[in-house]
Amino acid sequence: MRNSLGELFTVTSFGESHGRCVGVVVDGCPAGLPLSVADVQTEVDRRRPGTGPASTRRAEEDQVEILSGLFNGHATGAPLCMLVWNTDVDSSNYERIKDLPRPGHADYTAFMKYGGFNDYRGGGRFSGRITAGFVMAGAVAKKLLNIIGVEVLAHTVEIGGIAARAARLPALRRAGENPLNCADLSATAKMLKAIEQARAGGDSLGGIIEGMALNMPAGLGEPVFDTLEGDLAKALFAIPAVKGVEFGAGFGAVKLRGSENNDRFMLKRNKIQTLGNNAGGILGGISNGMPITARVAVKPTPSIGRPQATVNLQTMESAPLDIKGRHDVCIVPRAVPVVAAMMAIVLCDFALRARLLPEVIK
Amino acid sequence: MRNSLGELFTVTSFGESHGRCVGVVVDGCPAGLPLSVADVQTEVDRRRPGTGPASTRRAEEDQVEILSGLFNGHATGAPLCMLVWNTDVDSSNYERIKDLPRPGHADYTAFMKYGGFNDYRGGGRFSGRITAGFVMAGAVAKKLLNIIGVEVLAHTVEIGGIAARAARLPALRRAGENPLNCADLSATAKMLKAIEQARAGGDSLGGIIEGMALNMPAGLGEPVFDTLEGDLAKALFAIPAVKGVEFGAGFGAVKLRGSENNDRFMLKRNKIQTLGNNAGGILGGISNGMPITARVAVKPTPSIGRPQATVNLQTMESAPLDIKGRHDVCIVPRAVPVVAAMMAIVLCDFALRARLLPEVIK
Amino acid sequence: MRNSLGELFTVTSFGESHGRCVGVVVDGCPAGLPLSVADVQTEVDRRRPGTGPASTRRAEEDQVEILSGLFNGHATGAPLCMLVWNTDVDSSNYERIKDLPRPGHADYTAFMKYGGFNDYRGGGRFSGRITAGFVMAGAVAKKLLNIIGVEVLAHTVEIGGIAARAARLPALRRAGENPLNCADLSATAKMLKAIEQARAGGDSLGGIIEGMALNMPAGLGEPVFDTLEGDLAKALFAIPAVKGVEFGAGFGAVKLRGSENNDRFMLKRNKIQTLGNNAGGILGGISNGMPITARVAVKPTPSIGRPQATVNLQTMESAPLDIKGRHDVCIVPRAVPVVAAMMAIVLCDFALRARLLPEVIK
Amino acid sequence: MRNSLGELFTVTSFGESHGRCVGVVVDGCPAGLPLSVADVQTEVDRRRPGTGPASTRRAEEDQVEILSGLFNGHATGAPLCMLVWNTDVDSSNYERIKDLPRPGHADYTAFMKYGGFNDYRGGGRFSGRITAGFVMAGAVAKKLLNIIGVEVLAHTVEIGGIAARAARLPALRRAGENPLNCADLSATAKMLKAIEQARAGGDSLGGIIEGMALNMPAGLGEPVFDTLEGDLAKALFAIPAVKGVEFGAGFGAVKLRGSENNDRFMLKRNKIQTLGNNAGGILGGISNGMPITARVAVKPTPSIGRPQATVNLQTMESAPLDIKGRHDVCIVPRAVPVVAAMMAIVLCDFALRARLLPEVIK
Repeated sequence: MRNSLGELFTVTSFGESHGRCVGVVVDGCPAGLPLSVADVQTEVDRRRPGTGPASTRRAEEDQVEILSGLFNGHATGAPLCMLVWNTDVDSSNYERIKDLPRPGHADYTAFMKYGGFNDYRGGGRFSGRITAGFVMAGAVAKKLLNIIGVEVLAHTVEIGGIAARAARLPALRRAGENPLNCADLSATAKMLKAIEQARAGGDSLGGIIEGMALNMPAGLGEPVFDTLEGDLAKALFAIPAVKGVEFGAGFGAVKLRGSENNDRFMLKRNKIQTLGNNAGGILGGISNGMPITARVAVKPTPSIGRPQATVNLQTMESAPLDIKGRHDVCIVPRAVPVVAAMMAIVLCDFALRARLLPEVIK
Repeated sequence: MRNSLGELFTVTSFGESHGRCVGVVVDGCPAGLPLSVADVQTEVDRRRPGTGPASTRRAEEDQVEILSGLFNGHATGAPLCMLVWNTDVDSSNYERIKDLPRPGHADYTAFMKYGGFNDYRGGGRFSGRITAGFVMAGAVAKKLLNIIGVEVLAHTVEIGGIAARAARLPALRRAGENPLNCADLSATAKMLKAIEQARAGGDSLGGIIEGMALNMPAGLGEPVFDTLEGDLAKALFAIPAVKGVEFGAGFGAVKLRGSENNDRFMLKRNKIQTLGNNAGGILGGISNGMPITARVAVKPTPSIGRPQATVNLQTMESAPLDIKGRHDVCIVPRAVPVVAAMMAIVLCDFALRARLLPEVIK
Repeated sequence: MRNSLGELFTVTSFGESHGRCVGVVVDGCPAGLPLSVADVQTEVDRRRPGTGPASTRRAEEDQVEILSGLFNGHATGAPLCMLVWNTDVDSSNYERIKDLPRPGHADYTAFMKYGGFNDYRGGGRFSGRITAGFVMAGAVAKKLLNIIGVEVLAHTVEIGGIAARAARLPALRRAGENPLNCADLSATAKMLKAIEQARAGGDSLGGIIEGMALNMPAGLGEPVFDTLEGDLAKALFAIPAVKGVEFGAGFGAVKLRGSENNDRFMLKRNKIQTLGNNAGGILGGISNGMPITARVAVKPTPSIGRPQATVNLQTMESAPLDIKGRHDVCIVPRAVPVVAAMMAIVLCDFALRARLLPEVIK
Repeated sequence: MRNSLGELFTVTSFGESHGRCVGVVVDGCPAGLPLSVADVQTEVDRRRPGTGPASTRRAEEDQVEILSGLFNGHATGAPLCMLVWNTDVDSSNYERIKDLPRPGHADYTAFMKYGGFNDYRGGGRFSGRITAGFVMAGAVAKKLLNIIGVEVLAHTVEIGGIAARAARLPALRRAGENPLNCADLSATAKMLKAIEQARAGGDSLGGIIEGMALNMPAGLGEPVFDTLEGDLAKALFAIPAVKGVEFGAGFGAVKLRGSENNDRFMLKRNKIQTLGNNAGGILGGISNGMPITARVAVKPTPSIGRPQATVNLQTMESAPLDIKGRHDVCIVPRAVPVVAAMMAIVLCDFALRARLLPEVIK
């Protein structure tokens, strides 16, 4: 279904960038889960602009409200409707360019699909703001996964061609304190510089985010079609600007020989593990007990300050385009908690399918 | 649902590698589509081993049967059940190693998920043979897409680190005549050599397949969750050994600036098109009228001739593994028609959702 | 999915009786549908208590808000989130009896399923108030059906054993003006008297509602499982207190012979129709072009003023139960617009599946 | 989805009355279930014509084959494809009348929906023969329910206006030995006589079937939309000729007062039960631990020997219709095992959703 995702943990998204609110309905959360607005707010705060060690501006915004499904501090088993209200939206810039589809944006395809009836203000349904709903749902999923010991992390591994070095788990866990959600401080400095240069040039940058799920039990995934990779990828491609998803060695595996790429099985503390994790924790679409690792390619933000060329949809003539307004030069850091949220949502669904969570949490 | 894919064009897979058959139920094919066993057989023949200019061995096998949904040469609107029977299967090798999960294979994860009850012979549900069912369904999808002028192609673009040069459409259409389904003849020669070397060394190779859909109308896709990228990726990850999927510039886009990556809109014969196709024909999860292009990373075949190390699932002790039997050194060429089939299945589903095909085809 | 209904016109319900709100997300409404809050408010007003010719009390309540999916007076193609806020709820009575499940209510089953975490105030998710969301979704469905000329009606045909006489279409259309939503004025008088008697005796009454869809095109329905009868019945059983659903002659058909029950085909203005409509407009799960007729059995309201016997869930001892508070003696009249709403939702879904409505309404 | 039913226990139907086979794919059966062809054959035999104490004719027919999902005597967790081949079909009668839709049959609606491409021979997809697939799936569901102690029964309670007296459980369990699947021997004699009279008059009879599920745990059902009543009704309406479904007191409840209809809670062996079962074991769409009871109205078989009137679909002129061939005068007895099968399928799905069955059965 278009705006719903998941079989047993089902997330339904609603809202627009410049409409009244952005929200989500989560259906399938087991009754009894201890849950508070603060649990969800914490996650939503992580994707806000200007959040991070350097900035606490706009801290008053995006106050999460839970409209249903919560009673006496626990999930009731009924659908959780959660939202943040939109405030202080300035839609004037969009009126000016509503017939001028921005290259790289969904303006043109939305116009074609919805016949011009779509809410084009601020990108409407195609705005990154929609992911606030994803993060709210992800907050619930993370709490559920926590019960079975699964931890989902994400961090920036590349921006503007600058790659972070591999980091250890403690550093990855602290990546959220970094302004770019990156675990490599020296790479961060270079990335920040590249971002400043791009901004100065009226341009934008893309990058790569890595998502991980730790302590994953083996046996999750429902092939042949509901594979872990397939459902994770589907969820990750719902994040605006994502153009590629790979697991484990991913595209790098195609240059390896089988003898190099195969992760040999071995015993570790009487448990079967693999030496190396080229499989990204997934074999045959099912988790093998190793960490799930996914890498997500985020294209450079299509909104740039430079003049561009487009076609006027009303006059059907070529037209210059000059986008006003403040835009993120690089959305990669803000997309990091969204990657974690989407992974948590999908893994929670599979955990429910595998009966790893009871119908009532006591 | 686990073994079903698609909303309006729904494909349900069944069968095992060494069971009685491999098949598929296609539900949602509009009544009236002219269809014959030969239409489906042609596609199935393309994924058979040893098919190609150099070989017609085993031509007697994999005879498609259509058990339902067909009457007087047309689809009836009822479910099409199609299958190929398994013949001449030798399961003896598998008995010998059933407690020894092969590295890189689903043996271990299937054992964990299905408690050892899974049919492990020949990989069971995890065998590439299952994709014969995908290809049968894809044959129906291709015929439906053909009605609205959409053509789906796939070809090998890299094997063992050897990349094919970009080719023009006529060459891409002839790629099926090439033993590796590759449009670049000189690269093919090198790939064949690399395959021979890998075989001699008891090793295996991976590669990259590109799938394309031409003449795609703009407006297909159902965001925010049922994006074209998301649903295509989910379907492509159902192909065994796929570890990455990207669209358009994909992971390459992360190194571009927005001004480089944005495809500018322009007029061509009074139609809006883009200059360049870094978007792979998809913006905001919706087709923009340009060709859909997807690239699929196929890991090296995990079955290799070399001795490997594993763990015995019964004794829980380390054990050496020596896989007997004939295996494909590189499954990339055989997966090419499967990539096209999966893309056709998904695009057909979206075409039905967008009402581009009538309920009855006359 | 638990709280979602429909394939292409998908309705997701949320909210509780004494929580913050009752609402619905409608996904799949074609872009371009002219829609206003007033369109939805009109339908919601019809199910309010005390609405009807005799009463306009509480007119300030249940103000519909549309939070998303609406822009410039048209549906945008994005999900419509609609809700009414709960105000002035008095939950004190429920605290007193939360361990005493009321006979005939869902208190006990909800306790068993949700482990006591369910919001029991006012019946929570099991309250008739939830149907306000159904009616909001039904308002959208009715507007869509109106485009293809389909009209959905419902009216009371029996209360407390008093049956209304069959009425003609103009009278049925005016049934909404009647305090019991009944087209037979003389039966209404008797029903009102029976209701008063039941109230005086601290008791309650049930009844039968008939729903009809006029101008239905032939060919809607998706057997073998998604039959018109099956999907309509499933939707109607979501209305609290419904215990039976029949179509056309229904249970009465079992006493007829085939020669009596078969509706013969005949020509009327060069169109194929049937003489009689024992089939209720449905043959083989597909509409035959005659009016769809469904009859819905509504049990007597379980909340009664008389003392009853139950079991205390904490002490596991028998306990007397005395329900305080104002309750409807008979919910049949208020359920009438809900029956129409559920039928409209399902028929709209089938109309979309049959491509009778375009992707964009212009 | 049209030809699929169920979320976690998913049944996909395929095949036609006079095509090559009738079959089903069952997806979601937990791995490890002991299963044999004989288990399924036993159930299929119960719906065969001429089966019962009086007849073992045609015992050679309808041999069940399990094509996939079974290995070493256990379900593997992969889809079970099961079918019976059609043999000895005589389609000549249908050619003669293919433009003459039979009153009460789906001929006309199928023609309208599928544009005349449907396989009309023997009713095609609308034949009662399709239910052989339902019964095969039901056989698997029954085995799964058996693990948690749930027993599903069905029996004839009325034919041609002759009602059976209420019977006790031992008699209900023996109803299958009765030629009409009825537990009341004296009513059976009268029913048989009525059937003979109808046959002599070239006419047909309808009736009522009661289905029951015993030892149902409390807490099954997923409101607000996936209620036990709603999903059971949807499944039961997939049986050809069903025109009404009610639970517990059903339509009879509408004549009761709340004080009469409410089943009071009481303690029995320290378990909460109800005195009486007007609720049919379901409150708020969730099982309350009492037996589930459903009553299903089956219309008189539309195929009758008497001449009828119809319209020729080609000439669009009125035409007489004379149906040749052998037809069941009353399909009620043969539909009895199908009612049990549909109930078992739905209850098994809910049992899986409630995690009452593990992912692997050991």
